[in-house]
Amino acid sequence: MAGNTFGTLFSISTFGESHGIAIGVIIDGCPAGLPLDLDFIQAELDKRRPGQSKITTQRKESDTVQILSGIFEGKSTGTPIALLIPNEDQRSKDYNHNQTVYRPSHADYTYDAKYGIRDHRGGGRSSARETAARVAAGAIAKLLLKHHGIEIFAHVSAVGTIQAPQLQALEIPELLQIREENIVRCADPAVAKEMIEFIDGIRKDGDTVGGKVSCIIRNCPAGIGEPVFDKLHAELGKAMLSINAVHGFEYGSGFSGSEMRGSEHNDIFLSGGTRAKTVTNFSGGIQGGISNGMEITFNVAFKPVATIMHSQQTINAAGEITEIKGKGRHDPCVVPRAVVIVEAMAALVIADLLLRNKTSKL
Amino acid sequence: MAGNTFGTLFSISTFGESHGIAIGVIIDGCPAGLPLDLDFIQAELDKRRPGQSKITTQRKESDTVQILSGIFEGKSTGTPIALLIPNEDQRSKDYNHNQTVYRPSHADYTYDAKYGIRDHRGGGRSSARETAARVAAGAIAKLLLKHHGIEIFAHVSAVGTIQAPQLQALEIPELLQIREENIVRCADPAVAKEMIEFIDGIRKDGDTVGGKVSCIIRNCPAGIGEPVFDKLHAELGKAMLSINAVHGFEYGSGFSGSEMRGSEHNDIFLSGGTRAKTVTNFSGGIQGGISNGMEITFNVAFKPVATIMHSQQTINAAGEITEIKGKGRHDPCVVPRAVVIVEAMAALVIADLLLRNKTSKL
Amino acid sequence: MAGNTFGTLFSISTFGESHGIAIGVIIDGCPAGLPLDLDFIQAELDKRRPGQSKITTQRKESDTVQILSGIFEGKSTGTPIALLIPNEDQRSKDYNHNQTVYRPSHADYTYDAKYGIRDHRGGGRSSARETAARVAAGAIAKLLLKHHGIEIFAHVSAVGTIQAPQLQALEIPELLQIREENIVRCADPAVAKEMIEFIDGIRKDGDTVGGKVSCIIRNCPAGIGEPVFDKLHAELGKAMLSINAVHGFEYGSGFSGSEMRGSEHNDIFLSGGTRAKTVTNFSGGIQGGISNGMEITFNVAFKPVATIMHSQQTINAAGEITEIKGKGRHDPCVVPRAVVIVEAMAALVIADLLLRNKTSKL
Amino acid sequence: MAGNTFGTLFSISTFGESHGIAIGVIIDGCPAGLPLDLDFIQAELDKRRPGQSKITTQRKESDTVQILSGIFEGKSTGTPIALLIPNEDQRSKDYNHNQTVYRPSHADYTYDAKYGIRDHRGGGRSSARETAARVAAGAIAKLLLKHHGIEIFAHVSAVGTIQAPQLQALEIPELLQIREENIVRCADPAVAKEMIEFIDGIRKDGDTVGGKVSCIIRNCPAGIGEPVFDKLHAELGKAMLSINAVHGFEYGSGFSGSEMRGSEHNDIFLSGGTRAKTVTNFSGGIQGGISNGMEITFNVAFKPVATIMHSQQTINAAGEITEIKGKGRHDPCVVPRAVVIVEAMAALVIADLLLRNKTSKL
Repeated sequence: MAGNTFGTLFSISTFGESHGIAIGVIIDGCPAGLPLDLDFIQAELDKRRPGQSKITTQRKESDTVQILSGIFEGKSTGTPIALLIPNEDQRSKDYNHNQTVYRPSHADYTYDAKYGIRDHRGGGRSSARETAARVAAGAIAKLLLKHHGIEIFAHVSAVGTIQAPQLQALEIPELLQIREENIVRCADPAVAKEMIEFIDGIRKDGDTVGGKVSCIIRNCPAGIGEPVFDKLHAELGKAMLSINAVHGFEYGSGFSGSEMRGSEHNDIFLSGGTRAKTVTNFSGGIQGGISNGMEITFNVAFKPVATIMHSQQTINAAGEITEIKGKGRHDPCVVPRAVVIVEAMAALVIADLLLRNKTSKL
Repeated sequence: MAGNTFGTLFSISTFGESHGIAIGVIIDGCPAGLPLDLDFIQAELDKRRPGQSKITTQRKESDTVQILSGIFEGKSTGTPIALLIPNEDQRSKDYNHNQTVYRPSHADYTYDAKYGIRDHRGGGRSSARETAARVAAGAIAKLLLKHHGIEIFAHVSAVGTIQAPQLQALEIPELLQIREENIVRCADPAVAKEMIEFIDGIRKDGDTVGGKVSCIIRNCPAGIGEPVFDKLHAELGKAMLSINAVHGFEYGSGFSGSEMRGSEHNDIFLSGGTRAKTVTNFSGGIQGGISNGMEITFNVAFKPVATIMHSQQTINAAGEITEIKGKGRHDPCVVPRAVVIVEAMAALVIADLLLRNKTSKL
Repeated sequence: MAGNTFGTLFSISTFGESHGIAIGVIIDGCPAGLPLDLDFIQAELDKRRPGQSKITTQRKESDTVQILSGIFEGKSTGTPIALLIPNEDQRSKDYNHNQTVYRPSHADYTYDAKYGIRDHRGGGRSSARETAARVAAGAIAKLLLKHHGIEIFAHVSAVGTIQAPQLQALEIPELLQIREENIVRCADPAVAKEMIEFIDGIRKDGDTVGGKVSCIIRNCPAGIGEPVFDKLHAELGKAMLSINAVHGFEYGSGFSGSEMRGSEHNDIFLSGGTRAKTVTNFSGGIQGGISNGMEITFNVAFKPVATIMHSQQTINAAGEITEIKGKGRHDPCVVPRAVVIVEAMAALVIADLLLRNKTSKL
Repeated sequence: MAGNTFGTLFSISTFGESHGIAIGVIIDGCPAGLPLDLDFIQAELDKRRPGQSKITTQRKESDTVQILSGIFEGKSTGTPIALLIPNEDQRSKDYNHNQTVYRPSHADYTYDAKYGIRDHRGGGRSSARETAARVAAGAIAKLLLKHHGIEIFAHVSAVGTIQAPQLQALEIPELLQIREENIVRCADPAVAKEMIEFIDGIRKDGDTVGGKVSCIIRNCPAGIGEPVFDKLHAELGKAMLSINAVHGFEYGSGFSGSEMRGSEHNDIFLSGGTRAKTVTNFSGGIQGGISNGMEITFNVAFKPVATIMHSQQTINAAGEITEIKGKGRHDPCVVPRAVVIVEAMAALVIADLLLRNKTSKL
């Protein structure tokens, strides 16, 4: 496989470039009989869509999704589900300047080094536009998880140095409602306000900023994950790190766990059965790479968007020093739109491992 | 695949339990003609071996490796290389107590939940003993990388809250020499001393502590990595997260990058060609999921070992509350022995992606 | 993977049902820099297209292919190539009768048994319409093979009991020209005439008949094939057997080789080097699962089409005995349209194994 | 993957050369809880073992198998099962003559062409000795099938031009008993006698002869097989073609089906439900690539063994013409020992597709 397929039994293969005719995805392995709610899929895409608010890129794409196959009378048939999202608002000429110039901290240089040819328009295949296909596929994975009672929730937990506090002890529908009431998608309204103001200032500066997305998964049964390599958190980590701009992943206690002692870090069991209960959850719901039934928790770090509206020194394909300045319509901070991408990839991981777990016992 | 295979073209499949007859690994896809230096493979295993020093477990395993296949007159033949490491110093009775008791923050409960049966002796398949097979396979990957001039170096960059400073600007053989002169495997002798004392105190307390391993890869050509899912850092992340006790992975600027602005984070190009040079390296040598030729840098967070010599409350398989106290011979801190595991997994990732990159262009 | 992907490095994933919106394919792993000749791809599809002649189905589908991604300025970019073929001439009501009736020797019953739901219109996913996607992808594989000087040629070698003689010793372009001068696609004009008359009679009877396609591959370098499971002929065999209606595969001496003695079957070497020469070629160009440089030869057996215009007894989904009679527009014999499908699958196998062989040696 | 792994969920990876230390196999994905009957595994190996009778090679290998991992208290644990078979009776010097000489119709030339290095002793990796590992793994697959009530039976249906008649309508244990009462493993005692005499004559001539193995699978539920590429018969075909010396595969009506009309070939349904019944079974139990519950039937053609005791012209690695004459201890006809290999590969295919089918429906 050349890197464009993710998943073993519930697998997705994405295609398409930022300024081509369309992007899309084939989902292979979705069990037959699942109601495919097209409105839900579209609603998920709408959360990733550009042009949603003043703190996202002003590109206008409706990101309208079409199901080409794998559906009959509203249900999955067990055959490949192909989803197509036509590209609409390409202004390819905005990118003429980077046909031969390598933008700093973009993939221009590395794609040329690898392939010897590059669709420079809007970043081509390396554009985060590809993640729209993931969100569409992830929506179908979410429908499968919903069928099994599993819930996923992510939100913006940091923008630059502004950190959100721990999530309130609420049900996921409530958390979702709070999150969707603000344009930065943080589950804490007060911190959200601060984040929005900060991003808006960054945007006016022509600069960008990084941030973090935190995600929880509830009601996942114990037993999900395939040691020793396809551990649940290893699959989640790979999934998250494959999202554009992600520079870090941690689950449970994460990096701070490396500073702790065993006597404080161990999660004492209260009960077992089909889903364990523990006093603390530094394990993040995963032990030995397998879910234990507790809430699964992880954090994802996003670097700042590389395209800034400042003039920067760089090189061209001939290796000569030149100058470049961002044009086009870009996000000052990706995390508000990335929340649904994180959820989508998490849903794809859980859906795949759920199916894989079906054969673990006689 | 049921989770015991890693890699696409240079792939490894490990087998074996902590207290079974042997553990081992099959390497499939190693190019023919590579000299297989058995002394080097054994020397790598010796760095992971238990009983090396006062700050590691006192189990005595020689971890002697044997090559069963895939070699002819000292060279790889292109056929599967099977490596066998017999188990020697099992004291299975040390584990009788946890046959029906679930140790906190271990994989006992989750393996039972998943498989309905569990080899409880020494943790069975969930034991970190399995990583010996990875180190043996990783040694062969290192030999392949050496053939291509690529170097890997990892060391202990933190134990608990004790952090090592930035690596000195030295060649890798020099860094290796400094690292191997202390039993904690930190490239800073002064900090190493502090770490050793700290771990020794922890050990005397019957407690354990977490830590971090940092890794660099030099001379990797530009072009390595398979977007959009099998990005170089996504593969590295999965590889690291699949190691026992790892709770976090970050590359380049990592989590701290999420607090930065684009204008400070962008790595300005100085030159291109077959390997780029940039002023800073917040990208950690990877852009768009593909190596750019700069040094690849990443950090791995390890949680504290779960087995402590204190009495802890827990449950048994029947769900009843009981008590447990660690027996056996365990590491107070895994990072000194994990350094070579991190290097091995990194070598396996790079070897695999090097081969995969051979078909990216006509 | 759920069975809709073929190939390891040059891999295809097809999607789509007979009467859905469109069918299509994603090719992942095509090396960058390959000129993608859309006219050639369309010309290949035209050879599989329904309605070509009086001896094929009279359905009218233009089978117009569109490239959605993976191409820039006429060349492959190394990213996934998505090809779309809209469905046009569906007369879904022709299939109302088999919504709940299981047609004999069709996949209606087995799809219901497997998935519990079935798009009955035109056979849905089990329709041979899916092979149009394979032909489009195979055309791109052929372009890659052409770049390497490798040629593929298949023709109809039998219809019912009418057998074509051995191929004349001609160059492939000449053989192709002879083949395309008759509508049954047999490289022997006299036998072709006989076959056409026979099929026409069968068609008038409302019946169908089986046949054979024979294929040769020339200029394949020695070394292609991945023992011990992914042997060249094992991959070819799987590829051919995956085509609708195929019931048998043999290469080289095939089934008749099972009647021979070693002393007559052994192919005596005349010379070696990068491509061997042997006196005979009972090995069909493959030894130990690896090409030896001689012509690769194999035969494929197709059963008669199951849809006949006669009344037949069958059962419905409730298990009750009922009657069915073929409606719609069907082929009396599939082999004339299958020739290009056999070539396409052969090209895909060789392209994939060519790429895989790039890493066999240091 | 480099070709040494077979199967998706129930997968095997074999290793080892004919004259190395050992051969073996890792089975990954065997569901936990399966009793692993070591005596049964050994008994299966004994049927493939050399030196069984006057019509097989006189090499003496006990082929004693050892389970290294994946078993606890007699049952599979869901972790990889490693099986080891030490090599015993290598007379490597018997092969000194072919270190630089390419034996006709062997894999010597092609392995050198592919890998540039070759373990010439006993054919190295290309030796049929590798199939012992398959038989051991296949025995475990058979235990899984037995748990599901599925039965497999193969026998020698042809040696040279001597053909066995259709199988008698007996239960599989009865067929097995008849088969094992003669050394050629044909289920017809009278024909067996004729075959044995013929092979014995061939052996005395220093020659070899080909043959056919026919296989049936009973009680396979409807629904097994993964269209459109991993059809049940496509997987069976690949499995069989991957066995040394196999030149052809056909299922159901096979090659003779290509001569039939649809009106005679269609299998009329008598009843459906969880397993269909049809009047005839030209479909060989498979429709649209999915089992329909009827008996699965297929035939496998084996070419004559290439090693003969006659002097033959050939070339050496330098390309010079030379002479070679078979030494060592070889089979005059492989089919008696291949029967259990065919069964093993069939069992592996069905086991894998059984597991894969577990996720086809919600």
